[in-house]
Amino acid sequence: MIMIDRVETASDRIRNNHSQNGVIQPLLTDMYQINMAYAYWKSGKHDDTAVFDLFFRKNPFHGEFTIFAGLEECLKFLESFRYSESDIQYLKETMPESVEPEFFDYLSSITTKDVKVYAIDEGKVVFPRVPLLVLDGPLIVIQLLETTMLTLVNYASLVATNAARYRMAAGRKIKLLEFGLRRAQGPDGGLTASKYAYVGGFDGTSNVLAGKLYGIPVKGTHAHSYVSSYSSLDELHTQTLNHKETGAVMNLKDVSLAWRSLLADKLNILQSESSDGELAAFISFAIAFPSGFIALIDTYDVLKFELDWFEHLSIVASNDINEETIISLNEQGHKIDCFGIGTHLVTCQRQPALGCVFKLVEINGEAKIKLSQDVEKVTCPGKKAVYRLYGADGHALIDLMHRTSESAPKCGSRVLCRHPFQESKRAYVSPAKVEALFKLYWKDGKIQQDLPNLEEIRDRVTESLQTLRQDHKRNLNPTPYKVGVTDELYNFLHDLWLQNAPIGELF
Amino acid sequence: MIMIDRVETASDRIRNNHSQNGVIQPLLTDMYQINMAYAYWKSGKHDDTAVFDLFFRKNPFHGEFTIFAGLEECLKFLESFRYSESDIQYLKETMPESVEPEFFDYLSSITTKDVKVYAIDEGKVVFPRVPLLVLDGPLIVIQLLETTMLTLVNYASLVATNAARYRMAAGRKIKLLEFGLRRAQGPDGGLTASKYAYVGGFDGTSNVLAGKLYGIPVKGTHAHSYVSSYSSLDELHTQTLNHKETGAVMNLKDVSLAWRSLLADKLNILQSESSDGELAAFISFAIAFPSGFIALIDTYDVLKFELDWFEHLSIVASNDINEETIISLNEQGHKIDCFGIGTHLVTCQRQPALGCVFKLVEINGEAKIKLSQDVEKVTCPGKKAVYRLYGADGHALIDLMHRTSESAPKCGSRVLCRHPFQESKRAYVSPAKVEALFKLYWKDGKIQQDLPNLEEIRDRVTESLQTLRQDHKRNLNPTPYKVGVTDELYNFLHDLWLQNAPIGELF
Repeated sequence: MIMIDRVETASDRIRNNHSQNGVIQPLLTDMYQINMAYAYWKSGKHDDTAVFDLFFRKNPFHGEFTIFAGLEECLKFLESFRYSESDIQYLKETMPESVEPEFFDYLSSITTKDVKVYAIDEGKVVFPRVPLLVLDGPLIVIQLLETTMLTLVNYASLVATNAARYRMAAGRKIKLLEFGLRRAQGPDGGLTASKYAYVGGFDGTSNVLAGKLYGIPVKGTHAHSYVSSYSSLDELHTQTLNHKETGAVMNLKDVSLAWRSLLADKLNILQSESSDGELAAFISFAIAFPSGFIALIDTYDVLKFELDWFEHLSIVASNDINEETIISLNEQGHKIDCFGIGTHLVTCQRQPALGCVFKLVEINGEAKIKLSQDVEKVTCPGKKAVYRLYGADGHALIDLMHRTSESAPKCGSRVLCRHPFQESKRAYVSPAKVEALFKLYWKDGKIQQDLPNLEEIRDRVTESLQTLRQDHKRNLNPTPYKVGVTDELYNFLHDLWLQNAPIGELF
Repeated sequence: MIMIDRVETASDRIRNNHSQNGVIQPLLTDMYQINMAYAYWKSGKHDDTAVFDLFFRKNPFHGEFTIFAGLEECLKFLESFRYSESDIQYLKETMPESVEPEFFDYLSSITTKDVKVYAIDEGKVVFPRVPLLVLDGPLIVIQLLETTMLTLVNYASLVATNAARYRMAAGRKIKLLEFGLRRAQGPDGGLTASKYAYVGGFDGTSNVLAGKLYGIPVKGTHAHSYVSSYSSLDELHTQTLNHKETGAVMNLKDVSLAWRSLLADKLNILQSESSDGELAAFISFAIAFPSGFIALIDTYDVLKFELDWFEHLSIVASNDINEETIISLNEQGHKIDCFGIGTHLVTCQRQPALGCVFKLVEINGEAKIKLSQDVEKVTCPGKKAVYRLYGADGHALIDLMHRTSESAPKCGSRVLCRHPFQESKRAYVSPAKVEALFKLYWKDGKIQQDLPNLEEIRDRVTESLQTLRQDHKRNLNPTPYKVGVTDELYNFLHDLWLQNAPIGELF
């Protein structure tokens, strides 16, 4: 028996009301989350509350910024979070027999109504170590959300960031189309890529389902197979086309042949050098799509001629194009109007994963720290607030993490910002504007903010990137954007570190 | 409104009877396929028949072999292929107004019943240029299948190949677990990775949904958050455990403390160097999972001691492990029993896409060739048969492509094999065994072969790799496996090439 539950839009296809991929469900998680849930439950921790931060440690693609995406999908997952009967049945069969049956009753009862989620707005530019989401609520429930939330944020943010980088490389005037479905990592890898490439600044996609589900403009012309499926001009079933303005019936085949003859003379080449099958394919395609005709020109040979009026044609290029190719073509002063980008965009070839992590920072009101010999992996303990401080010219200066007990920085007031781990790296900032980065997005089992549609998130990407100084955004050796902590948080972090690090004895 | 159509198994969860991801549907394709379908239809090609080959040009990961996977998903897609009313509605709104309404009636009527699919068995080792699937049937229908089929084969084969390489690097005795869900490219990227990592030779996954849907063994222990959620031994709600053999009630906390004291003396360290919270976490986890207890040991500090009986412990290692790490650890004579592998496995970091393509090779019985200045991109025209020829020692010698009109090679009879493009590269082969690689998998709207379950595909991977000489499989500078054509196919290909390549005139 094959059951296909098609992912479909609501009948009126209001954007963002589409259903979520059916594989996004509570069991789309790591087994250790469920094992931990049982061990927590068994050791009486069902009423423990915890705070977890979701963040990454390093910007992708040797860059110094990241676009945050995937929030709406996380919220939809929270809305639908419920173990089904067959989920519970599967877990009963899979977990050791020693697991107490009451645990499964407990699992069946779990919802996300006691979880609060604070998050940065989707589409904003974000930086290492700053939490993108903060989850506050029952320890066990939040632990059970971890893997799925990471899956939903990691790739969405990676693709949106990649797309934003292509957009910056290409400039605002060039059209960018995502053509990656066939090379994507799984069918949904393709769908997710189409969605977040659009968020990151692409103009459209070849992926029809992405068009249907998300309202993204879809584009496409023809393939080599179309051209080579025609062998001769005799195969032209229809030869006429009405003139766009006069409406007069024209025979496109005759017109094309007359032009071919003229051109052959002008270019001093043999008419036999051109392929009749190729011309038949172009004519038939022009008859089917008389507006915005585009032809794929390298099935049999590549163009080698220059004609003045070639300059008035639109050129679409697609074949293994990446960010570096675009930058190099820019330097050569290319005439391309549109890039179709596939593999490199959707698989993020240069760095195919963003390393978001999900770390416990507080339990039952007590701050927790994860130590590591690698200082980059030491976590920033406790529940925190984060503010983005802007300079007088409108550019973002620093993201500053606070303890939640501290008062927010004020415009015009000097605040000391410290590097979280390097003692002597400190700076005073008198912000011209202060922006609180977290909003309460989830509480009492409900989404707490109006969610923007894809277009609005896309606009937010552009706006947010504009607040970033150019040197943070450049392709080569960009300057790192600063992420700091208040003096109070600095001291708190380092006291807790010393408290938790073992003291050995020398002999 | 949020609709969640959960992907669920049949209630009895018979393996391979699981439903397919709901995003796999006819609109999960490139727009140009539908545009081409219209242009074909408009130019009267609805009755044209065509043959398309699905193949790749280069093995991934600098290797010389690939594992073919994704066939069953392709067949399920063919089974369910039907444009829904809302699909047609969306296309009507999206395509130019000039598109004739009868085309949409035609689209609504399309099924795959007139398509025949020949394919290599899923799980077999395969090589560049040899078609993995051959689709024979109505031109328009096959064109509409292209992108989805590529999406289903590309990533599945890539991950299966990657997993098989890890298995070869690790050897048969080491356990390999896939831990990549959180870093995968989208939720289904994670699910697909878990499935095909198992096919490629992994022993299990952390992904619970993959366990539920595909019957793959799931594994998991605990995370740092579990360890750091405990602050002291007072938090141990339960302290007792029954002795496995005698059934006697033991106080695990007291036993553990006594052992800690003994060990501290033996190792000459302070008891205060160890973390009470960490010990509490380990005790509580052991009480919850008394069999097969595994502890995560680097939350606060890493072990620096050597004790004889440490050798009797099982060691599981996981953190950014790739094929090279395993090979390097092998050289150092590691004692690791199990690797948990995430990001590098599921995103295939070293090469995140397999470049399968889908090329027209015949139309209405006439062979077609796609020319290119890059000889690697010239297609092998016409419908072909492929045979794998084995030597007397059981190893595969060459994959030989035939024209379908030729008779199959015979055991013990000498056959001339030619390189498809290099005139002087030729060899005689007298095969000890001849294997026809294609089977008819789809005809009359039905699957034509018994489909193996995942375990059987997994076994086939092992068996198929065993027929491959070691030098083709080694990690460093492997020898390319030979793919050849018969003399007849060679001549046919080159005649057609000359026929289609334009002749210019020198002045």
